[in-house]
Amino acid sequence: MTEPIYNRVALIGLGLIASSMAHAMCANGLAGEIVGHAQSAETRATALEIGICDRVCGTAAEAVMGADLVVLAVPVGVMGDVAAMIGPHLKPGATVTDVGSVKQAVIDAVSPHIPKAVHFIPGHPMAGTEYSGPRSGFATLFQNRWWLLTPLPDTDAEALVKLRSLLEAMGANVDTMDAPHHDLVLAVVSHTPHLIAYTMVGVADDLRRVSNSEVIKYSATGFRDFTRIAASDPTMWRDVFLSNKEATLDILGRFTEELFALQRAIRLGDGAHLHDYFTRTRAIRRGIIEAGQDTAAPDFGRGAPPATKA
Amino acid sequence: MTEPIYNRVALIGLGLIASSMAHAMCANGLAGEIVGHAQSAETRATALEIGICDRVCGTAAEAVMGADLVVLAVPVGVMGDVAAMIGPHLKPGATVTDVGSVKQAVIDAVSPHIPKAVHFIPGHPMAGTEYSGPRSGFATLFQNRWWLLTPLPDTDAEALVKLRSLLEAMGANVDTMDAPHHDLVLAVVSHTPHLIAYTMVGVADDLRRVSNSEVIKYSATGFRDFTRIAASDPTMWRDVFLSNKEATLDILGRFTEELFALQRAIRLGDGAHLHDYFTRTRAIRRGIIEAGQDTAAPDFGRGAPPATKA
Repeated sequence: MTEPIYNRVALIGLGLIASSMAHAMCANGLAGEIVGHAQSAETRATALEIGICDRVCGTAAEAVMGADLVVLAVPVGVMGDVAAMIGPHLKPGATVTDVGSVKQAVIDAVSPHIPKAVHFIPGHPMAGTEYSGPRSGFATLFQNRWWLLTPLPDTDAEALVKLRSLLEAMGANVDTMDAPHHDLVLAVVSHTPHLIAYTMVGVADDLRRVSNSEVIKYSATGFRDFTRIAASDPTMWRDVFLSNKEATLDILGRFTEELFALQRAIRLGDGAHLHDYFTRTRAIRRGIIEAGQDTAAPDFGRGAPPATKA
Repeated sequence: MTEPIYNRVALIGLGLIASSMAHAMCANGLAGEIVGHAQSAETRATALEIGICDRVCGTAAEAVMGADLVVLAVPVGVMGDVAAMIGPHLKPGATVTDVGSVKQAVIDAVSPHIPKAVHFIPGHPMAGTEYSGPRSGFATLFQNRWWLLTPLPDTDAEALVKLRSLLEAMGANVDTMDAPHHDLVLAVVSHTPHLIAYTMVGVADDLRRVSNSEVIKYSATGFRDFTRIAASDPTMWRDVFLSNKEATLDILGRFTEELFALQRAIRLGDGAHLHDYFTRTRAIRRGIIEAGQDTAAPDFGRGAPPATKA
């Protein structure tokens, strides 16, 4: 058995990310003890029942006492409140990190509550599924996924190395960048796509000329992938858009501009414009497969691999 | 061995759909003989090499001679030209169907070239992957997928029953509806989502502030699904948009309206509006899973099933 990286880890919030971290830490012996807190008594009971925590506490303040690593795994909108509650109870020398999808807003909300003797290293694991809650976690969620850290100018180098080693031991690839750049990149690769998927699914639901049962029956290609994205946790996503407002509105503006150009090409029957555009986007897909972020296996939506050809 | 449903089937175009039909017909003994034609000599050679056709012909006219069923599996934009070439060579009593994603435009283009003694029954298999070409087909592509037929008012009942039995024998669920309604439904569940995915991927590619390698590296949730959709065949999709122009522009208009409402909610910080919207769209996802068009298994993008929880 290897030595644990942190003697005591406190998970504040016990949803998909925290429960996956618990599974990954247990599976690899990375934490001496895992203490958990969730606002809901039901979630705390579930966490004990499925064994993702050694102990659960009724308050976040109690959970962080004596912890060497504190992970804030709550919606971005309540990070500040949670930080205010735990601040006075943090152990000197401890590290606090978070898993929020937006970084600058979290830094602004959390930093003022972190004592001088505690290391705050903001983070964002770029992994997830469309499920949420303590039962949705699994040990391999972070394997070969990026975990972005946005350290502050005065971040302690040793604390950073230690946190990084934990994340890598859970299978993640770790990168560091500054918070504003993180928020822009995420607006492009995640936040705006989610908003668009939500919108399209909402439009389909609104239409009375096409029945809901038709939308559901005939979702085979295209719409089905949008509904998967649009099934993500509503509270988390509300907070993401409200706290990454500027970058999201910026990218949305670019998106609308581009969409209007394609719409105009359709209206005018400009097939060459459409064909060129669609050829260019196809190449990006190849880049993603080559980077190992998806498989090249054809997806026809039901998990079953297509039969091998003779 | 059961009797074949059609003695001779001619496949015009040998891409993903036609090659999957060939595999499915072979696997189930549904056709006495499969004759194929593709414009490219390379595709014809591949079709013979991988054994999806008993014979290939250098012209579509030659391929349809003596065929009991002719399947037009070419891009929507060339359906009319192909129909003009084969019309004079069709066998009286034969059935012609197509697999185009748009139905009214295909009916307008193809019908004038079909002799009185031949049955034209337009169709659309709602199944596919992001791959194309003769090597991309597999026998189970249509299993539990919808195959929509849009018969004309004078369609022969017996010919319809026979075609339907072939499609069902390949595993498809068959529904009939009129062509304009088909085109509207498809604009909602497929055509507009594809255009939006293409647009979003194009925007990401255009941005210079976020590097391409960042977009590719960090595509984990959200963007990755868009790139899959946006990797579909450019020619097919150009033709879809040009030939389902009105319904696509109609739904795009609704989409933009809705997107602007969400954009305004973000700008004004109206969290309740966002949360309500995202909660509503989540319910649609459950409907799709219940309808068997996708699995409930969490998708984290690499085909590997997540570890079962203890």
